[in-house]
Amino acid sequence: MVTSRSAAAARLEGAVPRRRGPVLERAILEAALDQLGSVGWSGLTMEGVAVGAQTGKAAVYRRWPSKEDLVADALQAGLPTLDEAPDRGRVREDLYELCRSIRDVMYSKPGFALRAVLHECDHEAAERFHGLITTGIVEPFKRLFRDVIRRGIARGEVRSDALDDLVLDVIPAMMMYRSKVCGSEWVDDEIADVIDRVMVPLLRV
Amino acid sequence: MVTSRSAAAARLEGAVPRRRGPVLERAILEAALDQLGSVGWSGLTMEGVAVGAQTGKAAVYRRWPSKEDLVADALQAGLPTLDEAPDRGRVREDLYELCRSIRDVMYSKPGFALRAVLHECDHEAAERFHGLITTGIVEPFKRLFRDVIRRGIARGEVRSDALDDLVLDVIPAMMMYRSKVCGSEWVDDEIADVIDRVMVPLLRV
Repeated sequence: MVTSRSAAAARLEGAVPRRRGPVLERAILEAALDQLGSVGWSGLTMEGVAVGAQTGKAAVYRRWPSKEDLVADALQAGLPTLDEAPDRGRVREDLYELCRSIRDVMYSKPGFALRAVLHECDHEAAERFHGLITTGIVEPFKRLFRDVIRRGIARGEVRSDALDDLVLDVIPAMMMYRSKVCGSEWVDDEIADVIDRVMVPLLRV
Repeated sequence: MVTSRSAAAARLEGAVPRRRGPVLERAILEAALDQLGSVGWSGLTMEGVAVGAQTGKAAVYRRWPSKEDLVADALQAGLPTLDEAPDRGRVREDLYELCRSIRDVMYSKPGFALRAVLHECDHEAAERFHGLITTGIVEPFKRLFRDVIRRGIARGEVRSDALDDLVLDVIPAMMMYRSKVCGSEWVDDEIADVIDRVMVPLLRV
């Protein structure tokens, strides 16, 4: 016989099969990204994420002790990974494709969420998320940028001393600066301009 | 006969001669800079500034309707003006001296106060102060940078197409990026490195 109590329990638990481990974690991280998109950092709550993931608060807190922890993991899991460095045969084309990939990551839903979080959150949390931009976007980009430069040196297009930490900083610096100061959105033409007018003169033999 | 009322009035008014116009305004702006240094943006109040300037609140509000207006003017008045572009005979040396001057402005008391205000204030006020960095520091720097480049082109040191808006952005971009991401304080050696490893290759014929 179905009692009213077990019917209620069935309504609560029957709609979503009990999930565990990675499946549940993915659902929670997805819900966190959704919350960031809809109500932003300030509106996001652990309770709201739990509801969005159709689970209980305890399941969230068990894995992520704080809002910063949860959002950091959600963003990191959500950021697209960068492929190998493009190889179009010329440094100018390789850089152009590479920068378009970075732009796509920064303007992806998680990239946009990351920058919105940085804009909204307090300064202690911001350090955590700045670190995420560095490890999740800038460092992978610089690794690929190094590959492009090495190939260019091998081809004789690029000067042999161009593999330089400061040279590698120029593109991230220009992206951050022009985005903050000029409101640039890194459309394709602007990327091409920075490469043709700054990077090619900077790198060439 | 000195009554107690006029004695009290004399104590209030006698200590500081009644000031007007520019003299009073300078005192108020100085007091605002002092407040920024001691209690920061969040601690600064119009009342506190009035006390520091030994004047009344009304004198402050009459000229500056809001905290943002007062702080913006105090910072702008306090920022050192940049001299003419240095002329040491070689682009490398000219750039080095110019960048050291900008560094000195950014790390002067008002420059430091400006950056601290940006760090502390809310986002609407921040736009106002970002604008101040642009008009008070970056634009003057770029004018002098253009002069240095023109001289270099005339000397045959610099390529003729180097007078380029994006090229002019590289130094401010690197300063902002490396300051935010690497905690750089733009010591002389680092300035020299950016000029030798990035700007000279970028500008040379």
